[in-house]
Amino acid sequence: MVAEVMRSDDWLLLCRTVRFGDTDAAGVVHFARLLEWCHQAYEESLERFGVAAATVFPTLAAQPDVALPIVHCSADFRRPLVCGDPLAIALEPKRLDPGCFEVSYRFSSGEQEVARALTRHLAIDAATRERCPLSEPINRWLEASSLGSGIQPL
Amino acid sequence: MVAEVMRSDDWLLLCRTVRFGDTDAAGVVHFARLLEWCHQAYEESLERFGVAAATVFPTLAAQPDVALPIVHCSADFRRPLVCGDPLAIALEPKRLDPGCFEVSYRFSSGEQEVARALTRHLAIDAATRERCPLSEPINRWLEASSLGSGIQPL
Amino acid sequence: MVAEVMRSDDWLLLCRTVRFGDTDAAGVVHFARLLEWCHQAYEESLERFGVAAATVFPTLAAQPDVALPIVHCSADFRRPLVCGDPLAIALEPKRLDPGCFEVSYRFSSGEQEVARALTRHLAIDAATRERCPLSEPINRWLEASSLGSGIQPL
Amino acid sequence: MVAEVMRSDDWLLLCRTVRFGDTDAAGVVHFARLLEWCHQAYEESLERFGVAAATVFPTLAAQPDVALPIVHCSADFRRPLVCGDPLAIALEPKRLDPGCFEVSYRFSSGEQEVARALTRHLAIDAATRERCPLSEPINRWLEASSLGSGIQPL
Repeated sequence: MVAEVMRSDDWLLLCRTVRFGDTDAAGVVHFARLLEWCHQAYEESLERFGVAAATVFPTLAAQPDVALPIVHCSADFRRPLVCGDPLAIALEPKRLDPGCFEVSYRFSSGEQEVARALTRHLAIDAATRERCPLSEPINRWLEASSLGSGIQPL
Repeated sequence: MVAEVMRSDDWLLLCRTVRFGDTDAAGVVHFARLLEWCHQAYEESLERFGVAAATVFPTLAAQPDVALPIVHCSADFRRPLVCGDPLAIALEPKRLDPGCFEVSYRFSSGEQEVARALTRHLAIDAATRERCPLSEPINRWLEASSLGSGIQPL
Repeated sequence: MVAEVMRSDDWLLLCRTVRFGDTDAAGVVHFARLLEWCHQAYEESLERFGVAAATVFPTLAAQPDVALPIVHCSADFRRPLVCGDPLAIALEPKRLDPGCFEVSYRFSSGEQEVARALTRHLAIDAATRERCPLSEPINRWLEASSLGSGIQPL
Repeated sequence: MVAEVMRSDDWLLLCRTVRFGDTDAAGVVHFARLLEWCHQAYEESLERFGVAAATVFPTLAAQPDVALPIVHCSADFRRPLVCGDPLAIALEPKRLDPGCFEVSYRFSSGEQEVARALTRHLAIDAATRERCPLSEPINRWLEASSLGSGIQPL
């Protein structure tokens, strides 16, 4: 029980620190940065789970068969964040259908929730850009991620 | 009639071009860039309407009494955009209450709508960070912007 | 004479305005933004000269035969810039050898020089990543750009 | 001997991973990102050494007496970097005079050096913007950093 929760935490609870370049002249984090942090957290989550970046994201050398463009995103900002603030980011990935998933992100600093965000990703064939099923590694990550929450047992 | 529409276009229909640094290794615009374009379009709209940046945004020298942090944003991505694509951005600002407004953004390239987005801004006292009324310049911009749409006559 | 100078200005003297997202919590432009502005100015210069983005920069659909990675850049910051500041950017492109060129950038605001920067670009075969000659459109832009300066007549 | 090297490594040898948002449509890291990584590495180095962000960088709540604007930066790019590449960043801070210091950065991935960069920082009085001496925490960091190199013994 405890072990399962711990294992889940390995790839679904990430940390970062607010850096100076994340702020704007109001002295707080510029809103659009939060969305960049979401994508970086999603990438780090996959990496920690064991999915190599090159199997999901195109590089100079190779393009995966399936692309996962974001078709929707949103964010809610609860409290201002300043340079040096430590952040914990809790991810909740969720498959919506065989070719689509969402990731919810809760950002907290200390004991306080500071922001929430969401990204929705669509699987498309990288060559034709037609909708297609999610790849096997993404499906494994989605299934394992739903285990820890106790909401969607297999 | 026509004149009014034209005048409205001056500050509510903006243009930009997709640049190389806006793209990612998938060959298309990175999703978070759209939110940055929204804020830049909002700033350019105010500037064209005649509201000086320094009356709304803090700088080294001075901080306006009222800050306008974004408390919510969202975006929907309809079509991929590549480097060099010309964009038209139609803004629709709307006051929600005396201390809050939203801006809707429709992005099109050629004849096609490519994305939509929304930012919601809350007026707060820059010193106390308590909610307060919108400043006079922002109110004028909101009122003038609603005239062209024929929905909210004064 | 005057006409030639004017023509040259069309693609070698560009304008932009400092936006809020360009600043950091010190209330001034974040240093790394200047380098992004350089690349955007270089792209806009090519576009104004008549070189389509797709002939130089890769997109989803196509990759030019020759890539032009930046192998060196530098910047000097003379004065702080704040949100709303208007900028003029004077470009001076210069071929160093048949497979390499530099662009110098002088940023001024009002009457004052505020920053200088430089990017050096190397031509490589996009497939093999071996050095190769510059493409014809880039060569035409480099030659036309040197005419106005009176330093390198044809 | 070994212990000293290890201790030095704590704040002068940092790690990060290339993320998708760092790349552009050429499939590799966009050049300007390297400069952002430099500043983030400099911030992380200070933090690991024990200098709180708020003593060096302005926030909503407070502004340190001494600001440290970057007056010069440069970068050399040796090899392309793609999404997922692990990076090691070796910092070499160096005081140039009582009111100025530089940080050199060597980026390597695996066994290969991939880039070098440099930032030069000037101490100024945050209120008057006149040159002034470096603050005590920055001086301690500069002195401790030079110990490991064997070049500038106290």
